[in-house]
Parts: sequence; structure tokens; C-alpha cells
Amino acid sequence: MAVGDVSMPQMHAVKGVKIGSAEAYVRYQNRRDLVVFEFAEGTNVAGVFTQNAFCAAPVRVCKKHLEMGNPRYLIINTGNANAGTGTLGMDNAKATCFKLAELAQVKPSEILPFSTGVIGEQLPMKRLLSGLQPALDSLSENAWLDAATGIMTTDTTPKGASEQFMLDGITYSMTGISKGAGMIRPNMATMLGYVATDAPISQELVQQLLSETANVSFNRITIDGDTSTNDSCIFAATGQAGGAEITSKDDERYAVVAEVFTRVMKRLAQLIVRDGEGATKFITVAVEGGANTQECCDVAYSIAHSPLVKTALFASDPNWGRILAAIGYAGVPELDVENIQVWLGDVQICKDGGAAADYTEAAGAAEMQKTEITIRVDLGRGSEKDTVYTCDLSYDYVKINADYRS
Amino acid sequence: MAVGDVSMPQMHAVKGVKIGSAEAYVRYQNRRDLVVFEFAEGTNVAGVFTQNAFCAAPVRVCKKHLEMGNPRYLIINTGNANAGTGTLGMDNAKATCFKLAELAQVKPSEILPFSTGVIGEQLPMKRLLSGLQPALDSLSENAWLDAATGIMTTDTTPKGASEQFMLDGITYSMTGISKGAGMIRPNMATMLGYVATDAPISQELVQQLLSETANVSFNRITIDGDTSTNDSCIFAATGQAGGAEITSKDDERYAVVAEVFTRVMKRLAQLIVRDGEGATKFITVAVEGGANTQECCDVAYSIAHSPLVKTALFASDPNWGRILAAIGYAGVPELDVENIQVWLGDVQICKDGGAAADYTEAAGAAEMQKTEITIRVDLGRGSEKDTVYTCDLSYDYVKINADYRS
Repeated sequence: MAVGDVSMPQMHAVKGVKIGSAEAYVRYQNRRDLVVFEFAEGTNVAGVFTQNAFCAAPVRVCKKHLEMGNPRYLIINTGNANAGTGTLGMDNAKATCFKLAELAQVKPSEILPFSTGVIGEQLPMKRLLSGLQPALDSLSENAWLDAATGIMTTDTTPKGASEQFMLDGITYSMTGISKGAGMIRPNMATMLGYVATDAPISQELVQQLLSETANVSFNRITIDGDTSTNDSCIFAATGQAGGAEITSKDDERYAVVAEVFTRVMKRLAQLIVRDGEGATKFITVAVEGGANTQECCDVAYSIAHSPLVKTALFASDPNWGRILAAIGYAGVPELDVENIQVWLGDVQICKDGGAAADYTEAAGAAEMQKTEITIRVDLGRGSEKDTVYTCDLSYDYVKINADYRS
Repeated sequence: MAVGDVSMPQMHAVKGVKIGSAEAYVRYQNRRDLVVFEFAEGTNVAGVFTQNAFCAAPVRVCKKHLEMGNPRYLIINTGNANAGTGTLGMDNAKATCFKLAELAQVKPSEILPFSTGVIGEQLPMKRLLSGLQPALDSLSENAWLDAATGIMTTDTTPKGASEQFMLDGITYSMTGISKGAGMIRPNMATMLGYVATDAPISQELVQQLLSETANVSFNRITIDGDTSTNDSCIFAATGQAGGAEITSKDDERYAVVAEVFTRVMKRLAQLIVRDGEGATKFITVAVEGGANTQECCDVAYSIAHSPLVKTALFASDPNWGRILAAIGYAGVPELDVENIQVWLGDVQICKDGGAAADYTEAAGAAEMQKTEITIRVDLGRGSEKDTVYTCDLSYDYVKINADYRS
């Protein structure tokens, strides 16, 4: 059960983006598991990918193809990650691009392939390739929900965000989907995220926007600290709704686009945490008062990854000593614990490194009972801050991951 | 249930070491929870302590007292960690030393205090202090088992190691105890470990031996990656069995002592993992072929901390893709995955970065069914190596840590 409101909003069509899907039986029967995106010519596309050294074959192909120019198609399969699959895995990723290029009459380098699912098994190529034509046949502007459903693995709910905004009298749409529920501690991007807008944004700005925004959204969530081999996030600006191309951050329309994009990306990232494997609570870890953002980030991740903190959150136990311990081992140089303040929601639990005088176990317990909890830490060393989103660690996390392949 | 043989060996008395214990009701009733060690005059003592910035009050007192000279007494309570307790916590740690010093007629600086248990609560000083005299009254050379039992928290079994060895015709004993089952990823030392020998070893060598050996024993185990606020390990050499003091590594007796000490320390460290909270398997992660030991250590910890690897181990699922992913995000610079080999026991699962051609799921599954599993990784970058010991992640880990305080 996902935490909080994870319902799909109205998914506005994005002019210049069509989506098709098919049941290719990659791993499971009777479900959409193959999704194709088609971008109109002239669409500017940017990508960010996992930093895992064992990056999957499709990720390597994506990076290479993106260097060669803007893609016209994305092809995504779920059920099999095509990672740890050696030379044959690379051949399969490329063969998928070749086949789709042939059917769609574009160049293979204009295809970006994505895979998600089990690591270390070869793709069932015959079934996968036979799903391409049906997916192309179903291309439609109004299939974002199908796409969100088609890329799910252990997700319990499809994940989407969509907004409309107006610039110089033109109404633009921005719509995105994401997936992921385990092996989540993205480093540059999440498991899979796709966002498109019909606003006109230059190639350079599309990449800048994506890189910057990934760092406050997908790169600030963690479920289990396991950075995946397949994390990928794509941002496409089709320009099909008209208007002059935004080419500079000084363009006053840029601020609006960036604001909408940040909101959409944060929502998509947080939806992944809300649907974290076994999650019963949504946790915001906000660290302020740092000498630099890196140490704020380190402390936030230290808390967010601590199995002891996460099990205490699951148990609604205000066991704040575990939070202090996690702060203490985050590796912040010359940390003076006597300047540290910690709050659970609005309740100060730790003052100047010890228990706050007016803290009561009852007040702490009341905060811990909530399903949305903010842990706030003031390091008392400066004015920088950073925020990480995570979930608790429950019996069901163990159950899901002990059972996943069977 | 601890994993494998964790039975207590014959705990040889160490000449010059007496142990007493008492029921002080620090947290629980009807159990020994207060332990006192008495060292003969002239005993050389060394300590290593947690690197957690939130180090507990007793740890801070220990460090200061050790700087002032060799201690005559250790006082250990379980049930309450006296960490995150501010000024009052410091006062309580010091008051414990003062009271014991008065009763034992030594200086307060000759007492080292240790606490383990819940973080963030004040010690029940009246009950604790009233246990000191009964503990002193029970001092005996043959109470190592009582001590091992008296320092347990969530441990399910007391932990001890003991050997005898002969140097120049003199029989010496080396005996130690440890405790800890959660919040275990020691950095410099484990939760609590105490080792003593009646061999004569100089002050300088005692500290060197402890620091070096901690790095291949207590500093190479992890249960949940949570470095505690109270980790402490003490090594005492009483010299009471006679012989000339060993003052140099060139002394041929040194190699024998170091070998016995390393074996005792590794056993005590591994016993903690075998009794890890909820552990059903004992895992050795051996990484070789590194350009330096640090990267071997990083990769080993990355695997040992991955919740996905740990749940797969619990499920006996040879889901080796999770091991590859953990290697890939360990942060080794310019890691060429095509040089990487991975074995489960003697079964090669990954060859040159992909599935080994002759690997079968059945062979992998047979290895994963075992309760003692070695994951071996060859990075193919050099000749350095390192080894980390850990356990799996089970339902019971979550249960124990969700329930611990209640």
C-alpha cells in the first residue's frame, strides 16, 4: 500500500508526444510490459543515467545514441533489466533499436532503449521484438496512463504528474511518469522517469534543466540505498505547442518552466518513495545549518539509510537516539554535537546535543504515529541545507525482496 | 538463533584479572547487568573507541582516563548506553568512577566506565551505584562466563574466546568476551570487547597490537551499517604469568602473541555477526584483486550493507544481479566491469562482468541454501584484498528493532 495520496492526476496530452504499448510476455503474462514513446521531429531530448559501474546494456546504448543527436523513439520493457548480460545483452539492446528503426523508418541511433526488472537474465528477444509492431500500432497522444502502468515492476501503483501553464498567451502541458519501488537510491536519475512538455526549449537548456532538477528530486530519494544498474530519466521538449524557443535562462519564461518542471520531477520522485517496497510512512529528512550542502546531504542520507531509524519509524517508536547515532557516523568533519538540534515534526527532541528539556515521550510518540513525518536537523555550522525523502523499513520490505524472483 | 557453533569455549583464567558482577536493575530485573574487571598493578591496557561524533559520555571519560595512565578497574553496565545524555550523562559517568574508586581505594582516573543499551536516557544512578559493592565482593579469576553474560543486550548468547600458548616454557592464557547484535558497523572497535592476557607486553605494543588487530576483526564486521555511539574494545596484558616483557616486534615471542590475539579477536568479532539481530546466515565477503585495500573494503561493505543482497541471502535466492549492482555503486574509480569475477562459495556466478557460461541456477541455489556462505569478488585491478563479515536481513531483524524499546 502506497503512503498518502498517490492518485493519478489528469494526464494532459503533450503535443508532439505519442505513446503506444503492448503485451510482449517479457516476464509476466496478461499485462502491458512494452511501451513506445514517439517524439515529433525537432523535439529536444536530454537524459541522465545511473552512475553504477555495472550500468545495463540499454543504458550504455542510450548514452551513445543521445550523443549522436535527438532521438525520435523510446522503447521500454519491464520484467527484465538486461543488466549483467555481457556481449549478448549489448547485442540484444542494439537489435531492439534496429528492429524498431526498421518498423518506424528512422535511424537506429534515433532510438533509446530502456529495460527494468530482473538483473542477469537475457531478454526474450523473439517475444520482445514481436511486440514492437502492436505497440507502434497503438500510438496515441492520450496514453500516458497506459505508459505509467506498462513500466511498473514491483510498483503497486502507476505514477504520474501533469500540469498546464501559460506563457505569452500560449497554454503548454508538462506531463511525466516514473516507476520504481526497490533498489532505489538514484545517483543522477531514478529507476525510470519520463517527462515531456510541448513548450519550446533549446537542447542545451533541456539538458541543464534535467541535470539541475534531478539533483533536488530523483537524486534525493532513497528506499534501500541500492543504486540500480538501470536508472534513467528523460526530459523531452517537443515545442509543438508553438512559441519562440527558450534559449537562455534570462528568458523570463524560463523561470516558469523551471518551476513547473521542478514540481513535476519532485512529485514523480516522491511518488516512488510513497510506493517504496513495504513502505508504511513517507519521511522527509531536512538538514539545515550545514557549512556546505554536501554535509547536509551526507547527514540526511545517513539518517535515511539507517536500518535502525527506519525500523523505529515503522514501529512508530520515537527512539531518537538512533537518529543521533546516524548523524554522528555521517562523517561530517569536526562535528560539534553540542550545536545540534533535532525535531520530529514541530517537536524538538534534541537540544544542543542532548534530550530537549521539555521533550516528552508522549509528544514524540504522537509525531511518530503519523504517516508523513519530517525529521529536521540543524547542524549549527552554517546556512546551507538539503533534503532527502525516504520511507520506513517494514516486514513487507523483507518479504517482497526475499520473494521477488520466485 | 545464532548461526553456526557459537558455544563458549573453556574460558581460561588470566592471572592478574578478576571479574565481579551484580544485578543492579539498570533496566531489567533478575539478570546480571553490572560487571567489574580488576587488573593487577602493572597491567598494560589499551583501548580503541567508536568514531561516532555522538560518542557516549563513558567513551569520552574512558579516553581521558586512558591518557592519564593504566586503569585498575573497568565498570560496565548494560541496559542503558548513557549516550545523548548531555552534561548530566557526563556527571553520571564520572560519579560512577568516583564511587568505585572510593570503594576500591584507587584514583578515579584509574577506572574506565562503559555503558551499553538504550540511547538517550539517564542512568538510574542510585541502583547502579548500589550494585558496585556487591560486584566488588564477587571478584574472582573464574568469572569470565558471568562477565560475558552480564554485558549482553539483545544478544541471544554470551560470546567468548580463550586460548593458551607457551613461550619460553611459560604457559600463558588469553581470554576475551564481546557483545553486540545490532547497531553494528564498528569503526575502530565493536560495541564492547574485552581481551586480557597474562603475558608480559609493553604498553606501546599493547596499543599497537589492538589497533592493528581491530582493523581485521571488529572493524571488519557489519550487521546493519549503524556505527554505535558506544563501541569500545579493551586489551589488557597483566604480565602476571611471568617472563620478560615483550617490548619489540622483533622479539620472536611477539609473532606468537599476535597470532593468538588475532585469532581471539576475529572469533569475538565473528561471534557478534553470528548472533546478529535476526541473522540466519553467516556471510564472508572476500574481495581480492584490488588496486588498494581501501577499494576492496569499500566493495565488501557495499555488498555487506545492501538490503537487497541481504534479503536475497535470507531467501536463499542466488539473485547475483544484486551483488553486481552493489559492486557497481561502491564508488571504485574507473572500475572496468569486464574484469570482474564473482563466486558464491566455489561456484563462479559472474565471469568477466556477465553470467558465467557454465553457471546454473541450481548450482547457485545449492550454495545459497548453506548457512555459512562466502561471496568472493575479484576486481582484476591489482593484488590487494580485504574481507568483511556480515549476516542476512530477515523478518526478525525488523521485528527485533521495531520492538526493542517496548
